[in-house]
Amino acid sequence: MVRRLRRGDRMVTIAHRLFQEPHTVVPLGTFTGALGAAKSTISEDIASLRQTCERFQLGRIETLAGATGGVRYTPFRTAEQIRAIAEDLVRRLRDPARILPGGFLYTADLLSLPSLVVSLGEVFATFFAERRPDVVLSMEVQGIPLALMTARAFNVPLVTARRGGIRTEGPSVGVNYVSGSSRTMQSMTLPLRAVPPGARALFIDDFLRGGGTARGVYDLMREFQAEVVGIGVLLEAAEPKDKLVDRHVSLLVLEGIDEARGAVHLAPSRFALGNPPRQS
Amino acid sequence: MVRRLRRGDRMVTIAHRLFQEPHTVVPLGTFTGALGAAKSTISEDIASLRQTCERFQLGRIETLAGATGGVRYTPFRTAEQIRAIAEDLVRRLRDPARILPGGFLYTADLLSLPSLVVSLGEVFATFFAERRPDVVLSMEVQGIPLALMTARAFNVPLVTARRGGIRTEGPSVGVNYVSGSSRTMQSMTLPLRAVPPGARALFIDDFLRGGGTARGVYDLMREFQAEVVGIGVLLEAAEPKDKLVDRHVSLLVLEGIDEARGAVHLAPSRFALGNPPRQS
Repeated sequence: MVRRLRRGDRMVTIAHRLFQEPHTVVPLGTFTGALGAAKSTISEDIASLRQTCERFQLGRIETLAGATGGVRYTPFRTAEQIRAIAEDLVRRLRDPARILPGGFLYTADLLSLPSLVVSLGEVFATFFAERRPDVVLSMEVQGIPLALMTARAFNVPLVTARRGGIRTEGPSVGVNYVSGSSRTMQSMTLPLRAVPPGARALFIDDFLRGGGTARGVYDLMREFQAEVVGIGVLLEAAEPKDKLVDRHVSLLVLEGIDEARGAVHLAPSRFALGNPPRQS
Repeated sequence: MVRRLRRGDRMVTIAHRLFQEPHTVVPLGTFTGALGAAKSTISEDIASLRQTCERFQLGRIETLAGATGGVRYTPFRTAEQIRAIAEDLVRRLRDPARILPGGFLYTADLLSLPSLVVSLGEVFATFFAERRPDVVLSMEVQGIPLALMTARAFNVPLVTARRGGIRTEGPSVGVNYVSGSSRTMQSMTLPLRAVPPGARALFIDDFLRGGGTARGVYDLMREFQAEVVGIGVLLEAAEPKDKLVDRHVSLLVLEGIDEARGAVHLAPSRFALGNPPRQS
């Protein structure tokens, strides 16, 4: 015999759906049907769920009234959680074994750990919550996991610009840009149908040095009549101080790599230390 | 005043943690501490959670006894769910507007929808559950989201092979391979430290035609003394029939594209129709 559903059973079922579709309004009717419960019962379940998520800092649950109403889950990381994530990353990235020839830092392993990039995606979703992006833009290759998990936290499509041309994705739009660090000419390309006009694009990448790539993203989005509503990077180089973009948001600042002494100078950014970006 | 925690509150908190770390054994002590509840209470919460997940097909919850014991969540899609996902994809991909010059199919938009790739990752995690991969391998660029979400479902690192060389990831290992479709020479490269010897690698990609890339993955993993425990692709071309690999698992089969008539011939694979791959 199937036992009667209890509040906890319904709460878990509702939570599973909401966690899978963040930033999305799910009508209450979805749950009354699936769970065979009255709307008033589901409303009480959601109220309990909201309290639990608040208390254990699992994110925010909101109920929206009206015809387009329902319930929405927003992944949210508190200032303390963000700081802890940044400090943990600083510890891991300071390992001298990560220094590569040419003063680069090996970060590929961390950017490939799903549970870590899920967290980082939620950190960026917290930073940019009010920007309401409807697409997350990434640049191949290393920034893709971070950008995808940010897209997941917003539940919006990911779009990936390619260096150079694309062979099998149909008509495309390309722009040239000057790499801010190497001062060489580069190009980035996107399929024409990837970004609709008027889209609000959030650019997420793993690393920003001179800002040339980010500058190129502005140019590229202009060609699509889309708007860049934010730039988020995991790691920002302190030098050069004058970057080709401003208003970007980083989690960590790379002050320098001393190859001779095997030292990585790295710290949480001001955004990670409790000064979240201005929402506008 | 903070109200007393009820079963539902604890179930949601436990579920949130388990959903975020699938395929990972979480000790019960994690929850007794965080929730201020006795082990017997937490055990009952988990029993309820297991029943709810089973009833609503949200995945599998297992309790493991002993010193290394705890509770583990395994995302799992039923045969009916997998068939429904495949049939939905077939409907969407049959759109003649997706036909690109040269008989290619535009799939980038679908492979960039987070909620869809989360589902697909869980489908591959279901297909390959018994293979126990400890790394998911992808080939840049288009296969990355699918591979990352499969890695997420297994909670193991993602590793991405690059076409050609890598500039900033340190010493690397490369192999050459012949593309099964274009018969041209290609190369793929991985950082030396990306895959430990003895690793069990699951290769996930968006498309398999001749199997040249997959063949190259076998060669590459041999250099790392790693084992390819499975090959999963979203879309497999029916032609050529003789592929350079066998035992790969696809979700959909592309029978052909009729550019002149604007027709895409596509169907769910036998794996999607209730013949899951042999587990071994």
